[in-house]
Amino acid sequence: MKRYLLAPGPTTIPPEVLLKMAEPILHHRNPLFEEVVAEVRENLKYLFGTKNEVLIFASSGTGAMEGAITNMLSPGDKAICVRSGKFGERWGNICKAYGVEAINIELPWGDDLDPGLVEKTIKANPGVKGVYMQATETSTGVMFPVKQVADIVKNYPDILMVVDGITGVGVFPLPMDEWKIDILVSGSQKALMLPPGLAMAGVSDKAWGFNKTAKCPRFYFNWAKELANLEKNQTNFTPAISLISGLRESLRIIKAEGLENVYKRIEKLAYATREGAKALGLKIFAKTPSPAVTAIYAPEGIDGQAIYKTLWKKYGVTGAGGQDQLKGKAFRIATLGYADEYDVITAIAALEFTLRDLGYKFEMGKGVARAVACLAEK
Amino acid sequence: MKRYLLAPGPTTIPPEVLLKMAEPILHHRNPLFEEVVAEVRENLKYLFGTKNEVLIFASSGTGAMEGAITNMLSPGDKAICVRSGKFGERWGNICKAYGVEAINIELPWGDDLDPGLVEKTIKANPGVKGVYMQATETSTGVMFPVKQVADIVKNYPDILMVVDGITGVGVFPLPMDEWKIDILVSGSQKALMLPPGLAMAGVSDKAWGFNKTAKCPRFYFNWAKELANLEKNQTNFTPAISLISGLRESLRIIKAEGLENVYKRIEKLAYATREGAKALGLKIFAKTPSPAVTAIYAPEGIDGQAIYKTLWKKYGVTGAGGQDQLKGKAFRIATLGYADEYDVITAIAALEFTLRDLGYKFEMGKGVARAVACLAEK
Repeated sequence: MKRYLLAPGPTTIPPEVLLKMAEPILHHRNPLFEEVVAEVRENLKYLFGTKNEVLIFASSGTGAMEGAITNMLSPGDKAICVRSGKFGERWGNICKAYGVEAINIELPWGDDLDPGLVEKTIKANPGVKGVYMQATETSTGVMFPVKQVADIVKNYPDILMVVDGITGVGVFPLPMDEWKIDILVSGSQKALMLPPGLAMAGVSDKAWGFNKTAKCPRFYFNWAKELANLEKNQTNFTPAISLISGLRESLRIIKAEGLENVYKRIEKLAYATREGAKALGLKIFAKTPSPAVTAIYAPEGIDGQAIYKTLWKKYGVTGAGGQDQLKGKAFRIATLGYADEYDVITAIAALEFTLRDLGYKFEMGKGVARAVACLAEK
Repeated sequence: MKRYLLAPGPTTIPPEVLLKMAEPILHHRNPLFEEVVAEVRENLKYLFGTKNEVLIFASSGTGAMEGAITNMLSPGDKAICVRSGKFGERWGNICKAYGVEAINIELPWGDDLDPGLVEKTIKANPGVKGVYMQATETSTGVMFPVKQVADIVKNYPDILMVVDGITGVGVFPLPMDEWKIDILVSGSQKALMLPPGLAMAGVSDKAWGFNKTAKCPRFYFNWAKELANLEKNQTNFTPAISLISGLRESLRIIKAEGLENVYKRIEKLAYATREGAKALGLKIFAKTPSPAVTAIYAPEGIDGQAIYKTLWKKYGVTGAGGQDQLKGKAFRIATLGYADEYDVITAIAALEFTLRDLGYKFEMGKGVARAVACLAEK
């Protein structure tokens, strides 16, 4: 079956990236590979909007999330974690594993975050060392107000602003230096159009200051050692060579399109997806939806998992189901990375076929028509 | 330039494995990928010689080494670490990072390990929880007596036998269950003929018992959670999908050749490499050399780094230099993974060209002649 991948990670990998990774492997302690790393370093700075180095790890994104705690904090420290979905819960779970006290800002899944609530929580908890949040909560499709929160945190020299941008970097603006984000984490399998297996973390000067006194144990994810190696175009341990070679290609693709154009493209694709779904009478889950991924309520009486599975099995479109408390209630279609206008039309068409099969009543073609009209807007 | 990769990792990747990884990526929460994992699980059990599950991590081998400490021990515990090269030192360094007391058995680089010394050290240090060692110390090319040490450790119900088999699994026999190895760690970029980025760990029932009380902090490398997911053909966090798809291919290749034949092939290639070098008047560094990688002394008055660099730059053969205290004194040629007879002849020929350029006096062709003769032996 011809398949279309519109999941919030992994995303479709461009053929030129796949073929680059299929070339004979380079040895990592070798000038040919060091050239690759040198170029990747520069282009990651462009992508993350920082003059500082962006560290690269052989791990999935969670490895860099763990490092953003263990390299910055000590057991007994307090950290504010915004919890409003599966990935927000991860920050708190990592804190717990390392003896850091998580002060959770709990929001109902799908809700907005009021930045004022972050300031209130900071004031109510003297000694807090960091605010840990998501750019997009991938499980709900909510985009959180990173800039507004960063505007608050930057006034506290003893508090770090840490953002899980795994589903954010390369999707919408998150300029680290300009917005004063201290740590920005990302992963390879989203906007970077690569297989999973690489994590990245941009680290501000303020964060490197925290690193000097952080006492949580770490070895594989030791950021100071990683930085020292990266400055020599090396990594502390054997890097995921083929993925880094692919990363060079995908960063070239992003740079050639231009980040601003990437952001505009993805925003428009997400807009057309939401509108196409709404034209079918469906409701969007997130109050402030992320352009990365759209979580859509299953219509009354129809199982969200059945929609996801039919889309995949019968109609060749791999989206995502609902996770945890959204399981069965919603399904997700992603528009980040290599996605284009035809992918959105394909997804909405497949959704129409699927809903018809599952007995939902609507006017066939209405979703696709609305999506095309949105894509035609200037 | 046409290049030949004979480094002790990464090793050459078979074209069919490269092309498998270049196929459109699968989604990991999906039956198509679960089929891949199911097959990989079975074949990893064959490779590791165990009925237990072999865990798979998105990391380099060091990540699994770290997990072999943090998932088994608690801060304040004592562990015996055999140190006789760069990678042996890593066990002790990980212990230190997590507050575990490393009792180091220090050996001069290149020397054999007397298994009796392990038993003596166990008796002199009541309460020791584990013996951590290498199968091959990659930096020196020494093969350590894993079976003999395991024969001792198995008599101590409170001590784990932990082996870094990153340069051992798939190179020579290390049957976990038969030899009573409690943890056997490996990585993708060696005998498994894949890019780096996957680590594996076989875990015995005895080790799972230790896991129940181990208090070192861990999150990304949480083995119990990984096991629970693996049993459902899943991983705890997003897996390195493309590498796991490649792993299915490379395990099929290994199974088709048959493990016993793989071991014989590599043993013979290493023998021919050692003999070819000796025929040129060179000396082998290791007293008990591993078939995985041969560390060869540079001749008097010639810089080992110059040999490694000339081999690579002028003659297209990527071996490895000496590391740390061997830097400049030795160079290394590996024979694991996809290597065949012609690779050895190529390597020895390139070595002859290189030594001639660097002013070493010898009879041209003598190394290659000896290597061919060795390969022709039954």
